[in-house]
Amino acid sequence: MKTVYDVAVVGCGAGGYQAAITAARLGAQVALIERDTLGGSCLNRACVPKKALAHMANLLAETQALAGLGLSGRLTADLKAAIAFKDKLVAGLIRGLPVRLQSLSVDLRMGTAHLVAPHEIHLSGPREHATISARSIILATGSAPRALAPCPVDHIRIVNGDSFIESLSRAADTVLCIGGGALGIEAAFILRQFGSHVTIIESGPRLLDRPVISDRAAGFLERRLVALGVTVRKGVTVQETKAYQDGVWVQFSDGSEGQFDRVLVAVGRVPQSDDLGLAALGVRFDSAGFVVTDEYCATNVPGLYAIGDMCGGVMTAAGAMHDGRIAGENAAGGEKRQRRPHQVPLVIDSAVSVAAVGLSEDMAEAAGFTPGVLSVPFAASVKAQAYNDAGGFIEIVHDEETGQMLGGCVVGAGADELVHLLAAACLSRRGLWTFTDLNYGHPSSGEIMGAALDSYLGVLSQSVDTLFRPGIYAHPD
Amino acid sequence: MKTVYDVAVVGCGAGGYQAAITAARLGAQVALIERDTLGGSCLNRACVPKKALAHMANLLAETQALAGLGLSGRLTADLKAAIAFKDKLVAGLIRGLPVRLQSLSVDLRMGTAHLVAPHEIHLSGPREHATISARSIILATGSAPRALAPCPVDHIRIVNGDSFIESLSRAADTVLCIGGGALGIEAAFILRQFGSHVTIIESGPRLLDRPVISDRAAGFLERRLVALGVTVRKGVTVQETKAYQDGVWVQFSDGSEGQFDRVLVAVGRVPQSDDLGLAALGVRFDSAGFVVTDEYCATNVPGLYAIGDMCGGVMTAAGAMHDGRIAGENAAGGEKRQRRPHQVPLVIDSAVSVAAVGLSEDMAEAAGFTPGVLSVPFAASVKAQAYNDAGGFIEIVHDEETGQMLGGCVVGAGADELVHLLAAACLSRRGLWTFTDLNYGHPSSGEIMGAALDSYLGVLSQSVDTLFRPGIYAHPD
Repeated sequence: MKTVYDVAVVGCGAGGYQAAITAARLGAQVALIERDTLGGSCLNRACVPKKALAHMANLLAETQALAGLGLSGRLTADLKAAIAFKDKLVAGLIRGLPVRLQSLSVDLRMGTAHLVAPHEIHLSGPREHATISARSIILATGSAPRALAPCPVDHIRIVNGDSFIESLSRAADTVLCIGGGALGIEAAFILRQFGSHVTIIESGPRLLDRPVISDRAAGFLERRLVALGVTVRKGVTVQETKAYQDGVWVQFSDGSEGQFDRVLVAVGRVPQSDDLGLAALGVRFDSAGFVVTDEYCATNVPGLYAIGDMCGGVMTAAGAMHDGRIAGENAAGGEKRQRRPHQVPLVIDSAVSVAAVGLSEDMAEAAGFTPGVLSVPFAASVKAQAYNDAGGFIEIVHDEETGQMLGGCVVGAGADELVHLLAAACLSRRGLWTFTDLNYGHPSSGEIMGAALDSYLGVLSQSVDTLFRPGIYAHPD
Repeated sequence: MKTVYDVAVVGCGAGGYQAAITAARLGAQVALIERDTLGGSCLNRACVPKKALAHMANLLAETQALAGLGLSGRLTADLKAAIAFKDKLVAGLIRGLPVRLQSLSVDLRMGTAHLVAPHEIHLSGPREHATISARSIILATGSAPRALAPCPVDHIRIVNGDSFIESLSRAADTVLCIGGGALGIEAAFILRQFGSHVTIIESGPRLLDRPVISDRAAGFLERRLVALGVTVRKGVTVQETKAYQDGVWVQFSDGSEGQFDRVLVAVGRVPQSDDLGLAALGVRFDSAGFVVTDEYCATNVPGLYAIGDMCGGVMTAAGAMHDGRIAGENAAGGEKRQRRPHQVPLVIDSAVSVAAVGLSEDMAEAAGFTPGVLSVPFAASVKAQAYNDAGGFIEIVHDEETGQMLGGCVVGAGADELVHLLAAACLSRRGLWTFTDLNYGHPSSGEIMGAALDSYLGVLSQSVDTLFRPGIYAHPD
């Protein structure tokens, strides 16, 4: 095995993996170091298992919406089989990773990394101990669930983001989710659809407290969770817990108490970088312990980059992958690229799908824009009505003056894909007019975007310039 | 009621309706004339009912794909309830049309239109006879199912596009679909999932013989239909039929014969414009009887426009709506706009969703481009694997020289929405690079577009210019 590389990446999660293949594609000699299972949180314990289980949960809701209206019989969730399917899925994806890395000549090195100098990593692995030097090093070691003092995790009765998916293989009739963020509400949806009685408690005044998600979106999501039978309590925290053989007793801040078969602690995540030796190198951290990076994903130590959860921010896999592409290219010595974290969609798969990109109205205002918000109900789409799932809405945030697209939020079926249209409009010089330039299939959800502008613009506007050669597109086929 | 208008639109189907509201939004006084049920074929007999039923058919397939893998129990289709749901859906949408027209001050005039002069329509309705004059007239009278001589439609045992949806309310164990076009394969999928034994015969060498759909896409779709139990026979036509009390006997061109409970004649559509008095005005028709129009949707008679199915072309509701926007704006005297029919997605909801936009490889070659095709399997998407539905692929057609996007085809789950991303890229100055500029949620189907370029480009490329103000997007939120 080599000891000298152009780029060494520490951590084979979504971000590190993306950084390694990006750099390799640019011709760099790349080492990718992982101390644990390949794929990181996203693949093993979060996004991927969640997507599979949320899909099943969603199918139960979608078919339920048509019960007696064309579908009969009864579908039930089989958690044991679902977990077996998930295990097989994840195992298959993990097996695929080394193959793809090998095809790009990325050296996968198993072991724990410790930075002994700015360009030098000591690797202690099960099969090797080595010193690896690299012109650039990209740190991508992710994050770990934040602990909650009154609620010590035992991974059996009291679980966290690391053990939640695993815990699903053991039935729980009653579950308490502490924290109404992405994990809490996604977990609550899955658990509820798979048969548990679920309570979410959230210390703040609303669920899904992310700046890019509007209050209205959060409120709609909450109502959908409640409609499914999830209990949502806001402004409440946990003061004390006692784990018994058969469950957990919980004392809440409002004086009430409860008994649950299982408790999920979902109160955010903390950076995971303690063992890397960064302090000794003088790497700068913020007050919360996140590594401080600039717009190029560079730390204050030359040649040392950091990406993804360990740097804070939105802390999503998609965000880490964005960083990975930026850092991978910058580390490989390509054109210097800046990160654009606002261009990364945030997607929540819960009782309703919520996805947002760019700036919310509040964020846009804070940034000095005069934002306008076009809001259209999903009911504007014939498709949504045909699916008997016309709840939800799309918010399109734009600059009133220029028509520049600033962002938007989709609350409704298929939000995880529809958000890409908003993202494309944010990148387009046509801004808001992207949605009138486009032709939509009929009936489709995309038409909602078009309908948003129907109510707003007196005059439709065609692309001034298109890339189509005249004559080709001017006639029917 | 007025007798003088800026714009009179004949036909309240998807195209005419769109033309009327477009012109009205631009300030024109508009009359919209309809002789039958509001909404046309699309709403009453085609797209809308089909979307509802295909969704149910699709849910049966999606849940079946996860049977034993997390979902148990058995869902069955209840055709009677589905038809009742469809009836209610359609009735609700029809009720909504006059409300929306009224809000834009469009006068809805019920009756049969006959053009007595280039700017004058004689209207004979159940409640009024009137002569309406208009500066511009937009014809949008649509099309009717093409007849097939050996197979006379009785709308009971032998049905066509007009009576197919209606016929679903009567059970049929065995069904023959004559014609492997959009209607035939969409109907076959619905019928099969709702319990019938279905045979498709197609006179040509492949299903879905549209230039924008590649042979590979058509072949994939055929295999999916066959996997569901549909019998597909190509290069076969019907020579003779005999309708009996309990079914239809059919003699095929290859010498074989068969007996079916029902036969669907789905061999294309013919323009519907006989009673309008167009010949007397000197309106030009092509050899197939379609009205000839130019790139502005104008006929050869000044002030007279024609749109949608009656003009031929792709003959979809989305296409008619595109025309409606163009003709509505041109007729109202706005900026002159050209139609771009290739920019309209074609969507097929069958055993697999197929959607295409722009040019196929063959079309691009014929148009003088040097096309490249990036083809990526749905399996490249972790989401597709998590849904256990990783069949299908996306083809991205572009100009090898310039990276200009020319079109593409999506074959797989969610194609009806994903195609909009291809459409957006076709309109973008960034062309193919649109897909690397974009950040995708993870896991998502949109990522497949990104993956398409992974395998192709050594160097990732960032938007040279974006509309984002620097400083706003350069930092995490």
